[in-house]
Amino acid sequence: MTRLVDVINGPNLNLLGQREPEIYGSTTLADIEADCRSVGGGLGLDVRFRQSNAEGELIDWVHQARTSAAGIIINPGAYSHTSIALLDALNACTIPVLEVHITNIHKRESFRHHSYVSQRAEGVIAGFGPEGYRFAVMRLATLLTASHP
Amino acid sequence: MTRLVDVINGPNLNLLGQREPEIYGSTTLADIEADCRSVGGGLGLDVRFRQSNAEGELIDWVHQARTSAAGIIINPGAYSHTSIALLDALNACTIPVLEVHITNIHKRESFRHHSYVSQRAEGVIAGFGPEGYRFAVMRLATLLTASHP
Amino acid sequence: MTRLVDVINGPNLNLLGQREPEIYGSTTLADIEADCRSVGGGLGLDVRFRQSNAEGELIDWVHQARTSAAGIIINPGAYSHTSIALLDALNACTIPVLEVHITNIHKRESFRHHSYVSQRAEGVIAGFGPEGYRFAVMRLATLLTASHP
Amino acid sequence: MTRLVDVINGPNLNLLGQREPEIYGSTTLADIEADCRSVGGGLGLDVRFRQSNAEGELIDWVHQARTSAAGIIINPGAYSHTSIALLDALNACTIPVLEVHITNIHKRESFRHHSYVSQRAEGVIAGFGPEGYRFAVMRLATLLTASHP
Amino acid sequence: MTRLVDVINGPNLNLLGQREPEIYGSTTLADIEADCRSVGGGLGLDVRFRQSNAEGELIDWVHQARTSAAGIIINPGAYSHTSIALLDALNACTIPVLEVHITNIHKRESFRHHSYVSQRAEGVIAGFGPEGYRFAVMRLATLLTASHP
Amino acid sequence: MTRLVDVINGPNLNLLGQREPEIYGSTTLADIEADCRSVGGGLGLDVRFRQSNAEGELIDWVHQARTSAAGIIINPGAYSHTSIALLDALNACTIPVLEVHITNIHKRESFRHHSYVSQRAEGVIAGFGPEGYRFAVMRLATLLTASHP
Amino acid sequence: MTRLVDVINGPNLNLLGQREPEIYGSTTLADIEADCRSVGGGLGLDVRFRQSNAEGELIDWVHQARTSAAGIIINPGAYSHTSIALLDALNACTIPVLEVHITNIHKRESFRHHSYVSQRAEGVIAGFGPEGYRFAVMRLATLLTASHP
Amino acid sequence: MTRLVDVINGPNLNLLGQREPEIYGSTTLADIEADCRSVGGGLGLDVRFRQSNAEGELIDWVHQARTSAAGIIINPGAYSHTSIALLDALNACTIPVLEVHITNIHKRESFRHHSYVSQRAEGVIAGFGPEGYRFAVMRLATLLTASHP
Amino acid sequence: MTRLVDVINGPNLNLLGQREPEIYGSTTLADIEADCRSVGGGLGLDVRFRQSNAEGELIDWVHQARTSAAGIIINPGAYSHTSIALLDALNACTIPVLEVHITNIHKRESFRHHSYVSQRAEGVIAGFGPEGYRFAVMRLATLLTASHP
Amino acid sequence: MTRLVDVINGPNLNLLGQREPEIYGSTTLADIEADCRSVGGGLGLDVRFRQSNAEGELIDWVHQARTSAAGIIINPGAYSHTSIALLDALNACTIPVLEVHITNIHKRESFRHHSYVSQRAEGVIAGFGPEGYRFAVMRLATLLTASHP
Amino acid sequence: MTRLVDVINGPNLNLLGQREPEIYGSTTLADIEADCRSVGGGLGLDVRFRQSNAEGELIDWVHQARTSAAGIIINPGAYSHTSIALLDALNACTIPVLEVHITNIHKRESFRHHSYVSQRAEGVIAGFGPEGYRFAVMRLATLLTASHP
Amino acid sequence: MTRLVDVINGPNLNLLGQREPEIYGSTTLADIEADCRSVGGGLGLDVRFRQSNAEGELIDWVHQARTSAAGIIINPGAYSHTSIALLDALNACTIPVLEVHITNIHKRESFRHHSYVSQRAEGVIAGFGPEGYRFAVMRLATLLTASHP
Repeated sequence: MTRLVDVINGPNLNLLGQREPEIYGSTTLADIEADCRSVGGGLGLDVRFRQSNAEGELIDWVHQARTSAAGIIINPGAYSHTSIALLDALNACTIPVLEVHITNIHKRESFRHHSYVSQRAEGVIAGFGPEGYRFAVMRLATLLTASHP
Repeated sequence: MTRLVDVINGPNLNLLGQREPEIYGSTTLADIEADCRSVGGGLGLDVRFRQSNAEGELIDWVHQARTSAAGIIINPGAYSHTSIALLDALNACTIPVLEVHITNIHKRESFRHHSYVSQRAEGVIAGFGPEGYRFAVMRLATLLTASHP
Repeated sequence: MTRLVDVINGPNLNLLGQREPEIYGSTTLADIEADCRSVGGGLGLDVRFRQSNAEGELIDWVHQARTSAAGIIINPGAYSHTSIALLDALNACTIPVLEVHITNIHKRESFRHHSYVSQRAEGVIAGFGPEGYRFAVMRLATLLTASHP
Repeated sequence: MTRLVDVINGPNLNLLGQREPEIYGSTTLADIEADCRSVGGGLGLDVRFRQSNAEGELIDWVHQARTSAAGIIINPGAYSHTSIALLDALNACTIPVLEVHITNIHKRESFRHHSYVSQRAEGVIAGFGPEGYRFAVMRLATLLTASHP
Repeated sequence: MTRLVDVINGPNLNLLGQREPEIYGSTTLADIEADCRSVGGGLGLDVRFRQSNAEGELIDWVHQARTSAAGIIINPGAYSHTSIALLDALNACTIPVLEVHITNIHKRESFRHHSYVSQRAEGVIAGFGPEGYRFAVMRLATLLTASHP
Repeated sequence: MTRLVDVINGPNLNLLGQREPEIYGSTTLADIEADCRSVGGGLGLDVRFRQSNAEGELIDWVHQARTSAAGIIINPGAYSHTSIALLDALNACTIPVLEVHITNIHKRESFRHHSYVSQRAEGVIAGFGPEGYRFAVMRLATLLTASHP
Repeated sequence: MTRLVDVINGPNLNLLGQREPEIYGSTTLADIEADCRSVGGGLGLDVRFRQSNAEGELIDWVHQARTSAAGIIINPGAYSHTSIALLDALNACTIPVLEVHITNIHKRESFRHHSYVSQRAEGVIAGFGPEGYRFAVMRLATLLTASHP
Repeated sequence: MTRLVDVINGPNLNLLGQREPEIYGSTTLADIEADCRSVGGGLGLDVRFRQSNAEGELIDWVHQARTSAAGIIINPGAYSHTSIALLDALNACTIPVLEVHITNIHKRESFRHHSYVSQRAEGVIAGFGPEGYRFAVMRLATLLTASHP
Repeated sequence: MTRLVDVINGPNLNLLGQREPEIYGSTTLADIEADCRSVGGGLGLDVRFRQSNAEGELIDWVHQARTSAAGIIINPGAYSHTSIALLDALNACTIPVLEVHITNIHKRESFRHHSYVSQRAEGVIAGFGPEGYRFAVMRLATLLTASHP
Repeated sequence: MTRLVDVINGPNLNLLGQREPEIYGSTTLADIEADCRSVGGGLGLDVRFRQSNAEGELIDWVHQARTSAAGIIINPGAYSHTSIALLDALNACTIPVLEVHITNIHKRESFRHHSYVSQRAEGVIAGFGPEGYRFAVMRLATLLTASHP
Repeated sequence: MTRLVDVINGPNLNLLGQREPEIYGSTTLADIEADCRSVGGGLGLDVRFRQSNAEGELIDWVHQARTSAAGIIINPGAYSHTSIALLDALNACTIPVLEVHITNIHKRESFRHHSYVSQRAEGVIAGFGPEGYRFAVMRLATLLTASHP
Repeated sequence: MTRLVDVINGPNLNLLGQREPEIYGSTTLADIEADCRSVGGGLGLDVRFRQSNAEGELIDWVHQARTSAAGIIINPGAYSHTSIALLDALNACTIPVLEVHITNIHKRESFRHHSYVSQRAEGVIAGFGPEGYRFAVMRLATLLTASHP
C-alpha cells in the first residue's frame, strides 16, 4: 500500500536556486520535489509537495495532511521562528512530523535559533542542504514502518 | 433595533470538536455559533460569526466590523501572541472589543501568556470553555445598552 | 440539593464603589454580593461572600472552602501578582476555582500582567466589570453540573 | 485648624534602637514618634503614629487615613519592595503621601532598590536616618499649606 | 529611461485618513500615491503603489519587485516588528530598499521600536508624516543615479 | 541547662498529611512536632512549635525567638520566595537559623528556586521529607554546643 | 520673515569626509552645511550649523536654540545612545526637533539601535546619507508652515 | 567655625523656573541658592553653589570639594543615571554626600529609576521640590555636628 | 543484608581541612569518610567514598553506582553549577540520589545558586557543614528501608 | 581511495540501549558503530568510532581528527551545551563537521536548546534516533565528493 | 626615527597617588608619565602624556593622535563603560590602540566589567598596577616594529 | 633564591602556531615557554610550563602550585568562561595569579567576554599576543619582590 506524505514549504522557498546560487546552490524546489518523489517512491511513499508564502495557507495544508496523509515533512522557512499558529496546527496532528532547514539556522542571526515547530517535530535536520529533504523522507519511511509495519 | 455583533475566530479554531475531544470536548464552532445567535437574539443582537486561518483576512474582517458592527468578540487563537497587526486593526475601532479563549492560556506554555489583543480589549475571558463566547455576548449587550440605552 | 460556593475577595476591594466612581462605577461589593446570591440562588448555589486585606486570612478561607464548599470564585486583587502562598492554598483544593478581576489587568502596569492564581484557576475573567462575578457563578454552576449532574 | 497626619511604619521597625545600635543608632520608634509630634505640633499637624508587621493591617490603616487624615507619611519597610496591595491602597487616596526609609536602600542589596510605594508617593527620602521623618512632616506641612492655605 | 519603483504598504494602511484624522491627518493612501507618482515622474521614476493586509501577499510583491523594479519603498506597518519572512524576501533582493513609517515608532510602545526590515533597508524614515514617502522617492532617485548614472 | 528552640512553620503547612497523602505522605505537622520534641529532648533542647498562614504573625514569632530562643528552625513555605520582611526579621537575630523544606523546591516551578530566607540561614535542607526537621534539630544542637559548649 | 533653524552635530562628525571615504563618501560637514543653507534659504529658513565633541556644549546649544530658533535638526552621533541629559535639554524645548543619522544605525551594533533623542524628536531619518539633512530641512519647513503659516 | 558646603547642580538645572512653570513651579536655581545660603548660614555652613551642563566640570568641582569642603550636596540631573565617572569622583571623597532630585524620579521613565550617585551618597531625597535642598543642608549640619561636634 | 552506598565528591574537595581552616574548619575528607562509614555501618550501609577533580571520572563513578549501589550521595562541588553531563549520568540512575554542600551555596555568589544536580536529587542539604554527609547517610537509610523494607 | 571519518561520542552515550529502552530503544552504541561502518564502507569511508565521558579526551580526539581524518561526525551529548573548549577544538579544524543528537533536544529542557558545537557544524540532525548517524555518514560522503570528487 | 605615542588618561586619574594610597599606592600620574617616557625613549618612542575629566576633550585628543601619532595608549577610566563616542573616535583611527586599567576591573562592580573601548583596542591590560602602562609602551614598540620595521 | 612559577595552559593551546598562522602567528607554545624561561631566569624565577586539554588536570596542577610555587600564570583558554571549578582551585591559593589571553577576548563572541578566573586573578592581559606571557612573568617578579623583597 502506498502512503501519502505531505512535504510543505514555507515563505521564500520558491526562490530556491534562483537567488545567490554561489550560496544556496543551483538546486531548485522542483529538483527537490523530484528527488523526494523518487526516493519516496522506492520506499512506498507518495509525495505531495507544495509551497506557499502565506501563513494561513500553510495552516490549511497542515489541516489537510492531518486527515489524509501518513506523515508531514515541513520546511517552515521564517515562520519557524514566529508562527505559534503553525505549531498549533501541527499539534492537532497525530501523524509524525519532521522539520527540515536547508541551512544550519544555528549559525545565523540569533532570531533564527528558535523554532516553534521544533517543539512538535519528531526530528529536525538543518544544514544538510537539499539532501535534508531526502533523509527526512527516508526517516519517515522508517517511522511509518515501525508504527504500522 | 437589532445591532450587529461580529464574532471573529482565528487559526485552528475550525478544528474545534474534531481533535482530542477528551480535552476540548465535542462542541464544534458551529455549536458555538448557534449558541451565540440564540443568546444574542434574545438580547437584540444579530451575530455574524466567521473563522479564518489567515491573519490578513482577520484584519480585513476587523476593518469591516469597524464601520458596520456595534461590537467585536474575537478569539484570536495563536495570533493573540504574535500579531501586532491585528492589534492595530482593533485599535482603529471605537466599538467595544471582548477577547475569548476557550482554554486558560495562563496555565499553558509561557509564550501563550501574553496577548497583544488584550491591550485593546475591554475584557478578556479565558478557560470558560465554549461558554466564554456566551458570556461575551451577554457582556456586549450590557456595554451597548450602557452606552446607547 | 444546594451547594455552597465561596466568593473570596482580596485587598482593597472593600473600597469598591467609594473611590473614583467615574472609573470603577458606583457598584459596591455589597451590590455584587447581592447579585451573586440572586444568580446563584436560581442555579441551586448558596453563596458565601467575604473580603479581607490580609493574605493570611484569605489563605484560611481557602482552607475552609477546601472542605466545605463545592467551588471557589476568587478576586485576589493585588495578591494575584505576589502571593505564591495563596496559590499553594488553592493548589491544595480539588474543587473548581475561577478567578475574577473587575478591570482588564492586561491593559495596566506590566507588574499586573502575571497572576500566580491563574496557574491554578480553571478560568479567568478580567475587565467584565462587576458582571464578571455573575458569569463566574454561572460558569461554576455549569462545571458542578457537569461533574455531579 | 489642626490637621491629622498618619505616620505608618511597616515590618521590623518595632525593633528600631534595639538591634545593632552601632549601625541603626539608639533612636527608637518612640523617639521618632515624639520628634514627629513635636515638629508636627509646631506646624499645626496632629500626628497619629503606628507600626505593624502585618501587611493587611497596614492596608487597613491606609484606608482609615484615606478618609480621616490630611496626609500620609509611610515607611513601608520591606513591604516597599513586594506589596502591590499596599500601593493599591495608597492609589485609592487623594491626599499627599511621602515615603521614608531610614537607610539608603539604594546602597543595599539589589532587591531593595525598587519600591512599589515610590510609584505613588509625592516624594521619597532615604538614608537621612530618623531625621527623615522630621523632614517628611515639614514637607507635608508645606504641601498642605500650598493646597489649602 | 523610466525606472519602476515599487511602493509597498502593509497592514491597516488602507485606513489612513479615515481613522482619527486629528492624529493621522486627513491624507489618504491615495493622496500619498498621487504625490509619489508626481514626484517620481519628475525624477524619471514610474511608481507602482500597492497595499495589503496579508503578509504572504506582501512577500509575493517583494518577489515581483525583485526582478522587475529598480528599487523598493516599503511601509511594512506592524509586520516591521514581527515578520522575519518579509525580511527574508527583501534579503533576496539586490535593489535598494527604503523603509518608511508615518509616525515616529520610537516614541510609541516598546514593541514597536524594533523593525526586522531595518536590518535590510538602506535607510529608514519615521515620523515625517506622509512626506516621508516623498523623501524616500527622492532618495531612491539619488541612489539609482549614483549606481546607474 | 535546657535551651529553647523555635520551630516556625509558614503558610499551608497546617494541611500537611491531609492533602494528597500519596505525595506528601500521611505525616502531620503534629507528628513532626512530636518527633522534634523527642529528638530535641534527648539533646537538651526544648522545642516550641508553631504554624501560621499570616506573614505578620511569623515575623512576630521571629521577634520573640530573637530574645527568648537559642536557635530557629523555620519552614517558611511559600513566603520563602516572596517575603523580604521575613528575611529582615531573621537578619535582626544573632542566633543560628536553619531552613527546612519538606520537598526539594529546586525540582519544582522556577519561582520556587529562590528563597530570601536562604540568604540568612546557616543551612538549608530540602527534600528530606519530615525527617528534615529532625536533622535540623540535631544540627542546631551541634551548633549550640560548638558556640556554647 | 526668515526663521532660524539650528543644525547641531555631535561627536566625531567633524571627521566626516576625511575618514574611510569609501564608506562614508567624500562629503564633508562643510558640504552638508552649504547644502542645508542653500535648501533652507529657498524655504525661508536661516541655518545655524555647529558641531562639538562635548556633551555639555551640545546641551548649551540646545538651550540657546530653545529661545532663539524655530526648530532643531540634530545628529547626536554616539550621544544618541547614552545621553539622557541631551534628551532632557530637548524636552525643555517646545519647537520641533528632527533627528538625523547618516548611516542606518539599525544595521550596526545592537548598542546603536536605541536613541534617547528619538523619544523626543518629531521624526527620525537614518541611512539617507548626507541627503538626510536636506530632507530634515525640508520637513522642518513643512512643520513650521503648518503651525505658523 | 564656619564650614564650607558645596552644592553642585548638573545639566539643565539652569533652566529651572523658566520652563513649564505649571510643572516645575516658578522657583529658580537662584532662589534655591538663596534659601540654601540662608538656612546654611543659620547652621554655621557657608554654601558654595554651582551649576554646569558639562560632566567633566562637575567632576572637577567634586575634586575641589574633596579637599576644601566639609560636605557635598549634589543634584546630578540626568548624569545620575549615566555617569560612572561622577560616581568615581565622589568615591574619592571621604566627606558626606547627599543627593537631591526635585522630582520623584521613581515615578518617571524607567531609565531614571537608577542612580549611580546613590551608590555613594549617604542619603537621597527626591520629589520634595526645591525644599529638598533645604532639608539636605539641614541634614548635612546634623552629620557634621555628629562627626565633629 | 548490607547495601552499598556511593559517596562521590567533586573538584577541590580533596583540599578540605587544609585550606582556610578558620572558614572550613579542620575536618578533612578522610574524617568525613570515617564518619560516614561509622554511621552507615550502624544502619546496614556499606560506604564507598571517592573524590575526583575530573568531570569525566565523576560520570564514570555514577555509571558504576548505577548498577552496583543502592544509593548515591554526591557533593558535586563547582560542577553542580555547570555540568549537565553529570546531571544526565544521574538521570540514568533509578536509585535515590542526595546532594550535599558543606557551605550554604545560596549565601555565596549568584552563580552558585543554581545546581543542575538538584534537578535530579531527591533531597539537597547545604550549609550543615561536614555533618550534612552524616544526615544524608541517615536519610538514605530511611529511603532504602521505605522502598525495600 | 578510502577516507577516514571520525565518529566521536560524548558523555553518557556508553549507556545507550541499556537504560530506559522503552524511551531510547534497545539499539546500543555498538549497533550504531556497526551501521556506520557498513554504510560508510559502501560509500568509500573508513569509520573510526569512539566514546568518552571526559571533555579533555574528546578534545584530544578532535585534534587527532584534525590532521588524520576527512570529516568529523560528533554527538557531543551534554557537552554540546556547555563546552566552549570543544567548540574551539572544532574551530581549529578545516574538515567538515556534522552534529548528531539521538533525541530532539529542542523538545527537552530549555538548557538543552543551545549547542556551542552547532556554531561550527556544517549541519545538525536531532531526533532522528540512531538513524541520524547513518544520514550523517551519507551527508559526509556527499560533502567529501563535492569538494574532492 | 622617533615615533610619537599618545598616552591618554580619563576621568579621576589626576587623583592617582593622592587618594587611598593603601589601595592605589603612592604612585602618581606624573611618576607613570616619567616611567613611560623613560621606557619609551629606550625604544625609540616619544611619549605625549595627558589627562582630562572631560569626555569631549578626550575625543579631541584621540582625533589629534589619529593624524599625528604612531599609536595610542589609553586608560579611559569610567568612560570605558559608558562612552560610545570615545569608541567611535578610536574607530576612526587606524593606528594601534592599547587599553590600560590600573586595577582589575573584572573583580569590581559588574558595571565595570564591560568596556566599549575594548571592542577597538588591540590589547587590554588590567590589574597590573602602574606597571601596565610600561608594558603597553613595550607592546606598542613591538607592534610598530612589526608593521614598520 | 630562585622561586618557582607555574605557567599553566588550558585547552587547544597545544595547537598554537600550527593552525591559522596568518591569524595566530607562527609562534608555538614551546617558543613561549623558552621566552618565559629566559625572561624568568633573568628575574630569579624558575618557570614550570604545562598544557592540558583536561579541566581536572588543570585543577590538579593548580593544587600543586598552591603548595610548591610562588605564583601562577594561567591561560585558561575556553575554560575561562565555563569553569567555576578552576576558579575554586585558584581561590584556594594565596599566591599571586595572573591571567593571560593571547587574543583580545573582548572583541570576540559575547560568550568569551566573561572569565571566571578574572574574579580571582590579580591582573589580566589579553590581546598582547605571545608577549603577554612575558609581561606576566615580569609583573610576577615585581609582585613577589614587593611582598618578599
